[in-house]
Amino acid sequence: MTPVATLQQNTAQQNTAQQNTAQQNTAATGAGLASAPGLDRILRIVGADLERVNRVVLDRMQSPVALIPELAGHIIAAGGKRLRPVLTLSSARLCGYEGDRHVELAACVEFIHTATLLHDDVVDESDLRRGVATANAVWDNKACILVGDFLFSRAFEIMVADGSLKVLETLSAASAAIAEGEVHQLATTNDLSTTEEQYLDVISAKTAKLFEAAAQVGAIVADQPERTERSLAAFGAHIGMAFQLIDDVLDYSAQQATLGKTIGDDFREGKITLPVILAYRRGQPAEREFWRRALEEQRIEDGDLDRAIDLMRRHGALAETVERARHYANSALRSLDGFPRSPIREALGDLVAFAVERPY
Amino acid sequence: MTPVATLQQNTAQQNTAQQNTAQQNTAATGAGLASAPGLDRILRIVGADLERVNRVVLDRMQSPVALIPELAGHIIAAGGKRLRPVLTLSSARLCGYEGDRHVELAACVEFIHTATLLHDDVVDESDLRRGVATANAVWDNKACILVGDFLFSRAFEIMVADGSLKVLETLSAASAAIAEGEVHQLATTNDLSTTEEQYLDVISAKTAKLFEAAAQVGAIVADQPERTERSLAAFGAHIGMAFQLIDDVLDYSAQQATLGKTIGDDFREGKITLPVILAYRRGQPAEREFWRRALEEQRIEDGDLDRAIDLMRRHGALAETVERARHYANSALRSLDGFPRSPIREALGDLVAFAVERPY
Repeated sequence: MTPVATLQQNTAQQNTAQQNTAQQNTAATGAGLASAPGLDRILRIVGADLERVNRVVLDRMQSPVALIPELAGHIIAAGGKRLRPVLTLSSARLCGYEGDRHVELAACVEFIHTATLLHDDVVDESDLRRGVATANAVWDNKACILVGDFLFSRAFEIMVADGSLKVLETLSAASAAIAEGEVHQLATTNDLSTTEEQYLDVISAKTAKLFEAAAQVGAIVADQPERTERSLAAFGAHIGMAFQLIDDVLDYSAQQATLGKTIGDDFREGKITLPVILAYRRGQPAEREFWRRALEEQRIEDGDLDRAIDLMRRHGALAETVERARHYANSALRSLDGFPRSPIREALGDLVAFAVERPY
Repeated sequence: MTPVATLQQNTAQQNTAQQNTAQQNTAATGAGLASAPGLDRILRIVGADLERVNRVVLDRMQSPVALIPELAGHIIAAGGKRLRPVLTLSSARLCGYEGDRHVELAACVEFIHTATLLHDDVVDESDLRRGVATANAVWDNKACILVGDFLFSRAFEIMVADGSLKVLETLSAASAAIAEGEVHQLATTNDLSTTEEQYLDVISAKTAKLFEAAAQVGAIVADQPERTERSLAAFGAHIGMAFQLIDDVLDYSAQQATLGKTIGDDFREGKITLPVILAYRRGQPAEREFWRRALEEQRIEDGDLDRAIDLMRRHGALAETVERARHYANSALRSLDGFPRSPIREALGDLVAFAVERPY
């Protein structure tokens, strides 16, 4: 039985018992993660830190220009899973760190993530994110871009105040990689000749890099040797890959739809994700014609999304993408092998399981 | 005779003789500044450094994602005046700095500026900048936002490699201020109740802060005492205010139009700049009605821009805005009082004169 399968089972068994606790935690932490089943072990350990992160986030997004906290507050309050700051917090704890720097730096990580979300909302012209209207459906594109810029700059101000050049190096490199990955994704949009390798490059840069940096920063503040830092960076990178692969599956998931989340955003935008690449590759000529019309020419007709989901299922494209995510999840777990067994290490296992098994 | 008036006269006398030299310099530096009359003294001093800045810019905007250098190259090659990196270079020289760090940091300053231009082009929906099609008229908004993010992150990577927390502090604070100023500007758009003070706050943040930081960074790399650093920061801030005030005048300038630049962008977007504030304040009820229709309700009719320019002239709004710019220019010159007279100090005087007297 793979580690993830084990975790999955454990998680399932604990779900019912834990849901009440998790719900009680929601008000306390104010973070979306708190409502996720199976994550109460990690919240018991970093929940108080996460509350402090939320306070730093609220405090540092203030500005005399009222539109900034209004708009930033909208997207930050919308919840999000706070996975990235949780990675920084728990990585620092895993390394035995007992100081305070991880809190401010976890807030930086969340600011960088929020800035990219704000810019992504403009880019994607999507109407819903996290089940609520995106900021740019309420305010306009202009404000989203500029408030994103503000949060991004503010993140760097906080890092500079922290004073570690190594942290600055890690997070500035991650930021450049994210932007590079997003532009790369743009270049592959509507292009069915995109290879699996190109897709993996895109998600590695646009998503996994910040997970990697988030976990690495925890090791840096704890002043760990290079080897430990690399292990945690690898842990973050792998969980980030798993997370994004599942994200790309969920965009074609009926279950997601029943949870009130939009599905089919990627399809409507012509994003070439792994489920598409696999279904297209395995498709008959008539199916390929369908994919070209819908994704390359973006002539989408009624029922096309259902047909896309049906084709993906028939060719095992969704299941295989989940399988890849499990592979990365296992790699993430193996990255922790060097750490002694401890409650925080176990809890990080829950986080890995959540990245793969989450319904949203 | 005010210092600026003196400089203006000197500049005028030198123009013809200098134009040939300046034109010859253009190919060598590849920078727009080289074609500006009256600036050959400063180019004789920092021209070689500026060429190195241009090479760093070209080198550091490279990426395996081809769209990034393509799009960044488009906006960077469009010229621009390179005023901000020139400030960093000449400020360092004024402080007797003989190292190399000012070159990479001047490139950072230009990257931050270019990133804001890319985001501003999206924001402003303007079709022309610097007389050529804006990047987003060629590529789309998505790419502009993301390439802007890339350049911005890359700027921080370069700063981190330089390793000065003081430089990082200065430029991250400036970046946050720019974004804050741009959002503030957005909040005052279409609002004729915007006060002069609010307008000055906006331009101080969105424009003067980066000029200030650019000049200050020159003093920081030269390891100058706090007092010198403050003088150069003040110099940059004042020249930045003068520059933006003139920019806001030029948007209503027929001379600008004859040079093939677009005018009236601010008018069409409903931006409330000082010429508008002054003309509106001094206007009769019928004139105020006109301003409200055009700028608040954005119902613009044929001939409205001409009428706006006519009203501004009649109420002395353009001349008074130029007068304010001269005031800031004089303050800029006075900020240099503590420095011994030298060719570079004189040349910085030319830069001040250029900021105010430039035809574009």
